[in-house]
Amino acid sequence: MITTSMVTPKFLTKPDEIGVVAVGFSGGQCKPGVDAAPSALIASGLLTQLHTELGYNLHHDDTVHSYKDLMPSEDPDVRGMKNPLAVSAVTKKLSEQVYAHAKEGRCVLTLGGDHSIAIGTVSGTAKAIKERLGREMAVIWVDAHADINTPETSDSGNIHGMPVAFLTGLAKEKREEIFGWLQKDNLVSVKKLVYIGLRDVDRGEKQILQEHGICAFSMHDIDRHGIGRIMEMALGHIGNDTPIHLSFDVDALDPMWAPSTGTPVRGGLTLREGDYIAECVHATGSLIAMDLVEVNPTLEPGVNDIGAHETVRAGCSLVRCALGESLL
Amino acid sequence: MITTSMVTPKFLTKPDEIGVVAVGFSGGQCKPGVDAAPSALIASGLLTQLHTELGYNLHHDDTVHSYKDLMPSEDPDVRGMKNPLAVSAVTKKLSEQVYAHAKEGRCVLTLGGDHSIAIGTVSGTAKAIKERLGREMAVIWVDAHADINTPETSDSGNIHGMPVAFLTGLAKEKREEIFGWLQKDNLVSVKKLVYIGLRDVDRGEKQILQEHGICAFSMHDIDRHGIGRIMEMALGHIGNDTPIHLSFDVDALDPMWAPSTGTPVRGGLTLREGDYIAECVHATGSLIAMDLVEVNPTLEPGVNDIGAHETVRAGCSLVRCALGESLL
Amino acid sequence: MITTSMVTPKFLTKPDEIGVVAVGFSGGQCKPGVDAAPSALIASGLLTQLHTELGYNLHHDDTVHSYKDLMPSEDPDVRGMKNPLAVSAVTKKLSEQVYAHAKEGRCVLTLGGDHSIAIGTVSGTAKAIKERLGREMAVIWVDAHADINTPETSDSGNIHGMPVAFLTGLAKEKREEIFGWLQKDNLVSVKKLVYIGLRDVDRGEKQILQEHGICAFSMHDIDRHGIGRIMEMALGHIGNDTPIHLSFDVDALDPMWAPSTGTPVRGGLTLREGDYIAECVHATGSLIAMDLVEVNPTLEPGVNDIGAHETVRAGCSLVRCALGESLL
Ligand SMILES: [Mn+2]
Ligand SMILES: [Mn+2]
Ligand SMILES: [Mn+2]
Ligand SMILES: [Mn+2]
Ligand SMILES: [Mn+2]
Ligand SMILES: [Mn+2]
Repeated sequence: MITTSMVTPKFLTKPDEIGVVAVGFSGGQCKPGVDAAPSALIASGLLTQLHTELGYNLHHDDTVHSYKDLMPSEDPDVRGMKNPLAVSAVTKKLSEQVYAHAKEGRCVLTLGGDHSIAIGTVSGTAKAIKERLGREMAVIWVDAHADINTPETSDSGNIHGMPVAFLTGLAKEKREEIFGWLQKDNLVSVKKLVYIGLRDVDRGEKQILQEHGICAFSMHDIDRHGIGRIMEMALGHIGNDTPIHLSFDVDALDPMWAPSTGTPVRGGLTLREGDYIAECVHATGSLIAMDLVEVNPTLEPGVNDIGAHETVRAGCSLVRCALGESLL
Repeated sequence: MITTSMVTPKFLTKPDEIGVVAVGFSGGQCKPGVDAAPSALIASGLLTQLHTELGYNLHHDDTVHSYKDLMPSEDPDVRGMKNPLAVSAVTKKLSEQVYAHAKEGRCVLTLGGDHSIAIGTVSGTAKAIKERLGREMAVIWVDAHADINTPETSDSGNIHGMPVAFLTGLAKEKREEIFGWLQKDNLVSVKKLVYIGLRDVDRGEKQILQEHGICAFSMHDIDRHGIGRIMEMALGHIGNDTPIHLSFDVDALDPMWAPSTGTPVRGGLTLREGDYIAECVHATGSLIAMDLVEVNPTLEPGVNDIGAHETVRAGCSLVRCALGESLL
Repeated sequence: MITTSMVTPKFLTKPDEIGVVAVGFSGGQCKPGVDAAPSALIASGLLTQLHTELGYNLHHDDTVHSYKDLMPSEDPDVRGMKNPLAVSAVTKKLSEQVYAHAKEGRCVLTLGGDHSIAIGTVSGTAKAIKERLGREMAVIWVDAHADINTPETSDSGNIHGMPVAFLTGLAKEKREEIFGWLQKDNLVSVKKLVYIGLRDVDRGEKQILQEHGICAFSMHDIDRHGIGRIMEMALGHIGNDTPIHLSFDVDALDPMWAPSTGTPVRGGLTLREGDYIAECVHATGSLIAMDLVEVNPTLEPGVNDIGAHETVRAGCSLVRCALGESLL
């Protein structure tokens, strides 16, 4: 049913290796349970499949990191942000883990956790790619949400709605212990950012997207052009010579296919469209890292856990497609 | 999440106003419950959203009209039509209400009720637009059904399957109390009619559509071309200089998204396609009225009323999209 | 709601007749219940609709054939194949039945049964078409699976995963009682084969498809191009002057629309896409036979049998569309 793809990775020196980081962290938002996602994904066989069916050698410490030792005893709001010390400490540590894999020239797969963890993953790969290849990388952010609120534009204060703002430098904070550790080399340019699947964007975020001319494909665009044409446009924007970090929020999928997530929004991608996006990114040969985030097996589990089960299966499918599973 | 659109209405003198008419009427068909739709739509926050999120000033009498005083003591079938006196009386009254709003130069939103009420809404706007602008308007009829039976071609005698026939003059009746009140100024040309979403069209209706060369896009056409291209064709047929009355039957959506309706038909529009249609009509700047009909919260309510809830939410989404809600 | 189509069949001398064969056989795989499909399809009104609504004269022996008399007392595995004697005997008999209808110049509708029965149907029509018209026919195989395993590449030994291999001569067996009865005239060329809907293809099958350059449209292709363009390509490959045998495995549809089938695979065709395929094949005027297989009303029946009911309804819809039901 599955073959190793014949795509040759352009920016990896160890194309048959994957660095895996499992992040059981939920502090970027308020609903418990998203920390259980890595275990659920692994229990459903994801890592085994990557090894036996797609032929990768996995570099994984066999640990789901909860970073308990990094949790502060107190963590008061800062500029409205909730759990700022915890999220900063966890993502700083994660950034180092991801950086280490990416510096080795292997693709990095991070299993979240809420989307705040992308502050760690993207900052880690951005730095490694700059050092290793002297290039800026692109980020494809597949999500119902833009996650580009600054602390000031955010209504909720949940940091999982802010990672893109910190990663592009639109939001800044000087204190080392609150994302002050993010250096120039950890950031990505708004010019290198592409959104796919947006349908629940805050007013302030819309302004940011417009002001900075950020490339964003909403569900309206997908309905108008079809996912085939959208991927041509998205990848055309990025170009052939740019490494790609794919950050996939499972809530980009319609709740029909992925109900178990913290902030579901109707009118989303079909699973077929999600897989198609991942397949197209794989086909570029430019993928250097993937995050899968916001699977929350404890939400909307449904009868006999069917909802959670389907969401986990959908997540596994997205990862396998991005890493080379193909239909024919 | 929502912004006021930047489209400038071409045919409204009061573009920031909406005239709202809530019609709790179910006499155009046989299943009770569709009269409960306006209250359900309003209870779910639709009108509040139009005001606070889209910035409209609403002109609404805070009444769901059941037109009890207009009900005849007896209402025998006429030419096979059921409840002819009641439907005629209600739609005549409704026509005057809608006309009054449209004559003022504001967009009119009518919340039905079964689709027979379009005899009132379209006749009202058609007259107002002719008087105010000297133009004929177009009607976009989004529906699983063509609703263009004459009393003679109808099997059921339900008038909600006939409104287009009366509104185009294909069906006529001289008696004042049975649609005889429809005058030339209340009618629309078959040339200005566009169907979207058809998939359950009676044999007699197919003949009518063919004979008169009516512009109709079935689900087959949507599958062939995609909803993006279909809307280009539909709006191309209408042209830029023609006011548009959008009459949206929620049964155009697939029962998966809108189960709570009287005559569901499988193989329908996804909610995304429905929203897309509404967004495209909005984007023309030509919208002068919208009907949302055939939501029946008492049918297929499902576990915990989820079916009814979803149908109401879908209806609200369609209205907001037609009135300017946009994703980005 | 339904009209007789205006397409003129190009390769049938009795265009108003349909030969119907009902095959209650499940020996090509391991799950009981698929033998109950013909009765369920007929009980739901399929044949009546073909007669009264589409105007066909049906040639049917009013029997669901279980071929009990052909069952061997013992049936040991041969080259890993399960039930080889039974499947061979049943398909040989079926081949004669289908041949008889096709030789008469009428369209043949076969209601399966598992997909192994296509060894009987395709071999029957191929021979009749060669004799009657001196032409090779094409086969459109709509399926989640390629069903092109040889006994040697098959993991399961289930013959319903092998029919295309035997029908194209890629798999051969000399013994008369194990498909040795398949003669040159019973076979179809791999050049005349088109797959639509593939998404679960075994490794060995992928090699076969590639080696022989077989025309195959996976779900990835459908997502990329849309079903409209895919059908243009599929029918373009076949050409206008070639009779078409449509072999439709209901598992080509997504389990959302057809859950009651033996080997469901997510990410499949919507019912709309399935109907569209059937409509397009009808519109060619080249259809000379259709199989509908793998409906299994005993699997995933769901609450109140809704799953089985939906699957049967989907199957009926596919058949009616292929035989001329149209929306407008
Ligand atoms: Mn999200
Ligand atoms: Mn996100
Ligand atoms: Mn309708
Ligand atoms: Mn209607
Ligand atoms: Mn099959
Ligand atoms: Mn199959």
